[in-house]
Amino acid sequence: MNYLCEEKLVVVGAAGAIGSNICQQALTERLTPRLTLYDINEASLRGTARELCHCAFPGARITRTVHVNEALDGADYIITSGGAPRRVGMKREELLTENARIAAELGLNIRQYCPKVKFVVVVFNPSDISGMTLLVQSGLKPRQVTSLAALDSTRLQYSLARHFRVPQDQVTGCRVYGEHGDTMAVFHSGVGIAGKSLSELIGTAALSAETWRKIQDDVRTAGKQIIEFRGRSSFQSPAHHAVQMLRSFITGERFAWPSGSYLNVPETGMGHLFMTNDNTINAHGVSSKMPVGTAEEMAALQASSQQVASLRDMAIAAGHLPPLADWAKVNPHLG
Amino acid sequence: MNYLCEEKLVVVGAAGAIGSNICQQALTERLTPRLTLYDINEASLRGTARELCHCAFPGARITRTVHVNEALDGADYIITSGGAPRRVGMKREELLTENARIAAELGLNIRQYCPKVKFVVVVFNPSDISGMTLLVQSGLKPRQVTSLAALDSTRLQYSLARHFRVPQDQVTGCRVYGEHGDTMAVFHSGVGIAGKSLSELIGTAALSAETWRKIQDDVRTAGKQIIEFRGRSSFQSPAHHAVQMLRSFITGERFAWPSGSYLNVPETGMGHLFMTNDNTINAHGVSSKMPVGTAEEMAALQASSQQVASLRDMAIAAGHLPPLADWAKVNPHLG
Repeated sequence: MNYLCEEKLVVVGAAGAIGSNICQQALTERLTPRLTLYDINEASLRGTARELCHCAFPGARITRTVHVNEALDGADYIITSGGAPRRVGMKREELLTENARIAAELGLNIRQYCPKVKFVVVVFNPSDISGMTLLVQSGLKPRQVTSLAALDSTRLQYSLARHFRVPQDQVTGCRVYGEHGDTMAVFHSGVGIAGKSLSELIGTAALSAETWRKIQDDVRTAGKQIIEFRGRSSFQSPAHHAVQMLRSFITGERFAWPSGSYLNVPETGMGHLFMTNDNTINAHGVSSKMPVGTAEEMAALQASSQQVASLRDMAIAAGHLPPLADWAKVNPHLG
Repeated sequence: MNYLCEEKLVVVGAAGAIGSNICQQALTERLTPRLTLYDINEASLRGTARELCHCAFPGARITRTVHVNEALDGADYIITSGGAPRRVGMKREELLTENARIAAELGLNIRQYCPKVKFVVVVFNPSDISGMTLLVQSGLKPRQVTSLAALDSTRLQYSLARHFRVPQDQVTGCRVYGEHGDTMAVFHSGVGIAGKSLSELIGTAALSAETWRKIQDDVRTAGKQIIEFRGRSSFQSPAHHAVQMLRSFITGERFAWPSGSYLNVPETGMGHLFMTNDNTINAHGVSSKMPVGTAEEMAALQASSQQVASLRDMAIAAGHLPPLADWAKVNPHLG
């Protein structure tokens, strides 16, 4: 029963539904035996740690703490789901003020207590702003900070598989870019349906333009649907992907889905942003480039990026992010 | 991304906290791509299945149904956590009437819809009676039905590791036998603490007899403690072990912990029982023999088995199990 590495993994928000699932998955996937659970809810934290001990993963060295300095000391990897959860009827944007503050605080704590951390995965929403804020405030390199965005693309895969009545993994190349929120840009370019090009199917009897729009809407509302069905927001699927993202960094096996990453291409109007790009995670971290698509897709991406920019500006106005002109001062890797 | 087999796994109670975790773990451990989720709570079931699809496990073929006949049709493996949960302050015994009925019904459904099922893991409490009732009513062989009991032993491992301040996996050979409930028999025979015999440590300065009694009590109340800490009963650790138990059957790699199994040794007073025995799970299923221990340990086991017998007799009185004299008629493998 070997582990993939011996590095210290800290799960922030470890007592929550997503966090506790992340802990369990990280051990099941044998990422590392050195797992530290951090949460401010002490009773829940104790219970979560206890349950993990009751799993008796051979070799596991599980610790827990309610003190962030203790948690982060010597951390090699961090996965954080330690934000406020989205509640029924709540828009992702409404989480912004609350969670940008939390992300900024964690970023500053990383800067202080574990500046040598190798890779950070941010799970809590709005994940673009959470990832962005943590990146700026922590002083880490862009390739070291990613955020959860895979679900938009896997939900597209699911919806297309359902429509075409094919096994889910016969739908390939699904890529949803831009904001991880209502303005996400759902691309069809590069998507294959059992070997056929989705772009060529749209507008035919196989998939009317209207149905394609409906599928795009389904992807946008898939998170809300989970809340309606389960009475709580998604927790198993975000935890799953968060662990797979870190796994890719550790093993170097390319992560199969898009994720959030820093992008600074001012000439396209997409300067100083953090959102879902054409990126990948491997042993180097997350690398990022501008997506390529049809004119219509690029316009959707442009609009989506403007939404990210406006959320970012709200976080700046609230004081959780510095003004753009100061970013390179606060974090020289963004210069 | 290969799976260990291609057989059909049905998770009963798939929408619950334990059940949904079992589904996720079964796919993460790549037991089989063919997973059917069954639950009577349709909305929750849809949400759970949807989340698993959003994980996008390559190759997975996930189906869901609220119809037991559809679920069980062609089932090769069943893991069932589909009982009523234990609520705060509730004794395991109080669950008996409710859950013995559920176990009997599932047993009869197995008999009718999937008599060729290979292996069944029963998770819901009181698990001895649930496993026993399902075994009798299903007509399956004793080696094909097991119940979750590992947690008592892993909790003993955890408590001893804490007391002796050693890593948890340096505590070896933990075995808790008998009822999976308050009368469980916590053995010290065979337990090693970083290579030393626990039996020889008890009564020394390293572990007073009184502290040993306290540790035994901790093991008995560990489940209640989780409820106090988390506000809900254990769900991650039972799901973990349930999946590992099935994994052992599929791979043949011996399961590391005890489990519930049928035992019929009338000459010891332990006739027609189902409880935690000295057993193991491998590709053959669960095999069972009488534990061996000190006179005191065997007396504790005897007392514990009497508790199981009395719960069993309650299930018989309630009509969920046939009278003992009829067991071999109802299930010839018990003859």
